[in-house]
Amino acid sequence: MNARTAPAETLLLTRRDVSTLLTLDECIAVVENAFREHGLAHTSAPKVLGMPALDGGFHIKAALLTLGARYFAAKLNGNFFHNRERCGMPNIQGLLILADADNGFPLAVMDSIEITILRTGAATAVAARYLARPESKVVTICGCGNQGRVQLRALMRVLPVQKVFAFDVNDQQACSFASELSRKLRINIEAVRDLAVAVRQSDVCITCTPARKFFLAKEDVAPGTFVAAVGADAEDKQELDPQLVASSKVVADIREQCTEIGDLHHAIAAGLMRLSDVHAELGEIVAGRKPGRASAKEITIFDSTGTALQDVAAAASVFQQALKQGIGRPFQFQAS
Amino acid sequence: MNARTAPAETLLLTRRDVSTLLTLDECIAVVENAFREHGLAHTSAPKVLGMPALDGGFHIKAALLTLGARYFAAKLNGNFFHNRERCGMPNIQGLLILADADNGFPLAVMDSIEITILRTGAATAVAARYLARPESKVVTICGCGNQGRVQLRALMRVLPVQKVFAFDVNDQQACSFASELSRKLRINIEAVRDLAVAVRQSDVCITCTPARKFFLAKEDVAPGTFVAAVGADAEDKQELDPQLVASSKVVADIREQCTEIGDLHHAIAAGLMRLSDVHAELGEIVAGRKPGRASAKEITIFDSTGTALQDVAAAASVFQQALKQGIGRPFQFQAS
Repeated sequence: MNARTAPAETLLLTRRDVSTLLTLDECIAVVENAFREHGLAHTSAPKVLGMPALDGGFHIKAALLTLGARYFAAKLNGNFFHNRERCGMPNIQGLLILADADNGFPLAVMDSIEITILRTGAATAVAARYLARPESKVVTICGCGNQGRVQLRALMRVLPVQKVFAFDVNDQQACSFASELSRKLRINIEAVRDLAVAVRQSDVCITCTPARKFFLAKEDVAPGTFVAAVGADAEDKQELDPQLVASSKVVADIREQCTEIGDLHHAIAAGLMRLSDVHAELGEIVAGRKPGRASAKEITIFDSTGTALQDVAAAASVFQQALKQGIGRPFQFQAS
Repeated sequence: MNARTAPAETLLLTRRDVSTLLTLDECIAVVENAFREHGLAHTSAPKVLGMPALDGGFHIKAALLTLGARYFAAKLNGNFFHNRERCGMPNIQGLLILADADNGFPLAVMDSIEITILRTGAATAVAARYLARPESKVVTICGCGNQGRVQLRALMRVLPVQKVFAFDVNDQQACSFASELSRKLRINIEAVRDLAVAVRQSDVCITCTPARKFFLAKEDVAPGTFVAAVGADAEDKQELDPQLVASSKVVADIREQCTEIGDLHHAIAAGLMRLSDVHAELGEIVAGRKPGRASAKEITIFDSTGTALQDVAAAASVFQQALKQGIGRPFQFQAS
């Protein structure tokens, strides 16, 4: 009998720890691997639990993944979109618990903010690898918050981006985005007020806003464009013209999830397409089971609702790096 | 603008902290209140997310509850029933995150073991108040683990228990239970091998085992008995003869949950009863919307699958006591 003398330790990781431990390149690599594993049916379906509250709500996303060892992660995020103005708190905040999937022990508790931001950018980068034209140079970013920032950074790891149009309903946000990132990323970024003009010239368009009514019109998206629809992750959120969705090659992160909470949901609800019209899940393409972009003319759409597969991949990577680099504070929750 | 200079702190609470902060009486009081709130439809339905793993699985239970302030709790438990023999770890272990339901901030992360044990015992005590004959003196406990211990302690807070029969498939467990608790609780406890004989003499019978096939037969339960079916909390777990369930007054903790993972599930699956045959949810009885026990002769069954309402009530109480008593270690997860 292998009796323990003291309970094992759970590693506590702050937002700063996570941000130190998780590079964007590493995040893209582990997220791509997670989608591949899913595409090869090596993982069970990730799951979601939502709970509405006053003026916001909670989302729990959970998944299992093998990354060397077997891990389970559950991310609990509160989404309260008046937080910043009301109390100076982040609108989206929460914690992620990473557990040993062989015995249930909680290996780590980490702040979820960086993980959520980075893994979402990473998924777009993975999708762009398979769905954007490889020579894509011009990009429009709709929504100039934290997510817009990481989307652009992630995209630049996989495409030869040279020119960026920054659009936001809040002009000031677009201007700050342009001036901050053009300096940091040494790239030409122009804040724009006319989204249509920008998108028509773009090879890639990323939408990452909290919009509840679509603003990206079908007629403004040129043939050959890759669109990443990142913002819609709830039933009442929408960014893309359903006509655009229905007439493009649509790739879902998780098919069932996109039909419930992604932009896909609205195109199906409008009777413009059926679930069977979805070309593939991203994992199927990464795994080589289905083709990605097939011509320079087609419009491809990645419907990104955010899956716990990305979370568990990123969190496992953070945890492994933390052990290697000796970062984080151990805590014995089971001390009795 | 109410800018924060530093991120707020999350309170970390060990198993020992929780056990210090949560008395059984307090737990019974807050769990009874949670059921009442639910019975008055003041709460939204608690939710469950399950994820199977090799040789075990994970369960997340989540609920919102107002206890002074508005709280949200998500409890993540790993259930791995070979843990103790394989690696000396608890079979059920995990963490509970308590969040401010008005802005999503994680107020506390606490070990879940004591909460799970105590709130389960507390629910039985609440049910016994309304469903057992008030003069109940003789009790059979089936399953002499940690849960059996707290079930008996909880029952003794609400009924004039004088004699206990302890039954376990492992005789040794039953004997340890009897000798340990008869000393600690100063009560007559007899370890028994013949369950039928014990149950026939009992006013109350509690089943809290991991059984997958029923062992409590209809013919052994005398008129007037109160049965608490505590063990079955998964589709493949079963403790009560479906004939016994179908012929008794059944009260569920959460109706829908019991039809999926409680003993009720098997009686319905066998075609012996319908959902509409369930007398009430416990909350409806506590709230006075439906009657509890109606005669000294009827057999009442409490189907206890465990709800996040109990968790959030217990966790909020722990948190409030921790603040009051200055217990726990603060940690800034959002430090950046």
